[in-house]
Amino acid sequence: MEYINNELCLGPLKKSLSVLTTDYMRPTYVYDLDFIAQRYKAMSGALKNTRLFYAVKANPNAQVLQKLKSLGAGADVVSLGEIKRALESGFQPQDIVYSGVGKTKHEITEALKLGILQINVESLPELERIGAIAKSLNKKAAVAFRLNPDVSIQTHPYIATGLKDNKFGMELSSLPKLMACLDKFSDSLELVGVSLHLGSQMLEFSGYEEALKKLKAVFIDLQKKAPGLRKFDFGGGLGIFYDRTDLELEESLLQDYAKITLNVLGDLDCDLQSEPGRWLVGHCGVLIAQVQYIKTTSEKTFVVLDSGMNHLIRPSLYEAQHRIMTLKKQNESHTVDIVGPICESSDVFLKSVSLGQVREDDFVAILDGGAYGYSMASVYNLHELPNEICI
Amino acid sequence: MEYINNELCLGPLKKSLSVLTTDYMRPTYVYDLDFIAQRYKAMSGALKNTRLFYAVKANPNAQVLQKLKSLGAGADVVSLGEIKRALESGFQPQDIVYSGVGKTKHEITEALKLGILQINVESLPELERIGAIAKSLNKKAAVAFRLNPDVSIQTHPYIATGLKDNKFGMELSSLPKLMACLDKFSDSLELVGVSLHLGSQMLEFSGYEEALKKLKAVFIDLQKKAPGLRKFDFGGGLGIFYDRTDLELEESLLQDYAKITLNVLGDLDCDLQSEPGRWLVGHCGVLIAQVQYIKTTSEKTFVVLDSGMNHLIRPSLYEAQHRIMTLKKQNESHTVDIVGPICESSDVFLKSVSLGQVREDDFVAILDGGAYGYSMASVYNLHELPNEICI
Ligand SMILES: Cc1ncc(COP(=O)(O)O)c(C=O)c1O
Ligand SMILES: Cc1ncc(COP(=O)(O)O)c(C=O)c1O
Repeated sequence: MEYINNELCLGPLKKSLSVLTTDYMRPTYVYDLDFIAQRYKAMSGALKNTRLFYAVKANPNAQVLQKLKSLGAGADVVSLGEIKRALESGFQPQDIVYSGVGKTKHEITEALKLGILQINVESLPELERIGAIAKSLNKKAAVAFRLNPDVSIQTHPYIATGLKDNKFGMELSSLPKLMACLDKFSDSLELVGVSLHLGSQMLEFSGYEEALKKLKAVFIDLQKKAPGLRKFDFGGGLGIFYDRTDLELEESLLQDYAKITLNVLGDLDCDLQSEPGRWLVGHCGVLIAQVQYIKTTSEKTFVVLDSGMNHLIRPSLYEAQHRIMTLKKQNESHTVDIVGPICESSDVFLKSVSLGQVREDDFVAILDGGAYGYSMASVYNLHELPNEICI
Repeated sequence: MEYINNELCLGPLKKSLSVLTTDYMRPTYVYDLDFIAQRYKAMSGALKNTRLFYAVKANPNAQVLQKLKSLGAGADVVSLGEIKRALESGFQPQDIVYSGVGKTKHEITEALKLGILQINVESLPELERIGAIAKSLNKKAAVAFRLNPDVSIQTHPYIATGLKDNKFGMELSSLPKLMACLDKFSDSLELVGVSLHLGSQMLEFSGYEEALKKLKAVFIDLQKKAPGLRKFDFGGGLGIFYDRTDLELEESLLQDYAKITLNVLGDLDCDLQSEPGRWLVGHCGVLIAQVQYIKTTSEKTFVVLDSGMNHLIRPSLYEAQHRIMTLKKQNESHTVDIVGPICESSDVFLKSVSLGQVREDDFVAILDGGAYGYSMASVYNLHELPNEICI
């Protein structure tokens, strides 16, 4: 994000944001599709021979999905709703990997009828359920085991998902029972892959490398028993910086991540898959909001926006700090708390930050809102959902 | 909540919940309108001579609003969306008090055109804005100052709103400027009230009493200058217990709260107003969800539901603990983690709790979901919003 001719610009093509406020009606997420394309190309270039399945949960906007499909991505989904959205946006059933711990009978039935590529299984009873439903439909379900090598990574505890005591994935010790279940449903289940997802916002890879190595050994072992096992899905979770713009450093972390991944997995006889979400779209979206009030008290100055935790809940939920910049460059700045309109003390974007001097009706951009922004929005306080624009 | 003939029952009329699951399609909020009526009557009985303005944000379900309107309640709203919902549900403009820190020009314009009863003002620039808009519309806006006596109450920091360093209310020291603004807009602004709201989940009242006394002195003083000043709005925030059912103790806290309030304010020459939300509806709703999987690991047993932080975000957002009970009484129980289907580690309702022995497809009720449940729900992961039923 930088100012060109005093206008805040987004993405590598430096698209000015001010023009988008001409017909401003309400807070608006802006996604730069070219920027997404650039991120996608960087990642698919680095992760050679890997098929990228975009994690739809990060941002299920239809145009974003269309763009990623056109670039060659598959879709990683976690509900029937996401399956439908992916299909509406041009993905084929064979582009879709279905993850998630709570798949209902109805969802599994629909997924199998559609013939989606692969179901990532999170528990033994889920495998049983898929087996039984596939059998009743006379189908053979292609499943991957999401395995949990119980390695922790450095991340916010809310986002870490690769640990033994959380609900995701299956322990290696459960493999005998899983294999027995495959045997039981040998006509309706086929093990095609193993998958792994350690957590989100990974910026350091030692735990990841350890997990990959553990899982590689398991994979080789399993291949002896399951001839259809051909896919190694190493998950998503590559992190981005919210506290600065440093795309170069992020690309170099991407290179490290790719190198570690391919070093460990490169000699496997298999297809590699990944499920990135945030890295592809996080930086490529901003939330534009309008200043409603500058409220001064004896202790501080509040900048009250028309958008808050209803539209972007990450600050309230994870204490995430999204930088905020004025759309027009200001020469002076002041130290303020930037807050939303919701009647909750947790509805605060940033405390005691420096912001260009703003007045009522000015616009600001809340940065890095492309991932887990709109997708987690609500109509709390019965404010409308934000608008979405792709540029 | 208790079992009658092994069926979990809601509210004083002990309405069985199992019958509601016959056509179960997806997670369902159930609201007991008779229970709401009982709570309303208890509160309006205790708070003599006080008009209750129900805080719509707690639960904007249309039938809930209709019920409360029929009982005599007004509505406390925080957005144009809530104003519209209240009007659609039978409230008249003169039943509506409009609060909130971020009122837009459009919202204020519509509120003034509709002729709503009173606008609770949260900042000097808001007062300026209301004055200017009322002037341009040739209206006289009835305003109340939300004042901030800077008294802290014992509550979760996220919910406390009566403190100097948060975005709500105005400091007493800002009164001279506010009065000057009233003078400036003497044809278009009329000060009709003062208001106060210290925070949510108040279960202890010493800070509240202190705040009331401070504000009472201010009120008497202001009445000398503002002849139209007739309303004292002492806010909402009376707490409920989430960790047990003890309606008697809650009623006795209500009596304490009413006694303190009326002791301090009873001799004022004014109309009393209150803005309760949670106390009226919190216990009167449950979220019914279906068990999808019982997932056992070497460390624990997870009960995976089809509903999670997408439908009830309070556990993830505030670490709130909502008790969970099986709809059918079970003789055996087990220690489990109860989690939702969302792909986030924060999507956990309860850890290491005792739950009646459940199997796949069984139903559970997540208690005390009548307030800040559906109203904060999202379609995260593109799961549908929950269903809502009033009984
Ligand atoms: C199974 C799975 N895959 C992929 C992702 C995407 O993660 P990220 O957006 O951090 O890349 C998630 C995120 O929660 C996930 O749970
Ligand atoms: C101004 C105002 N009034 C009333 C309420 C209702 O509070 P409760 O539901 O705790 O009674 C709130 C809650 O946030 C509020 O902000």
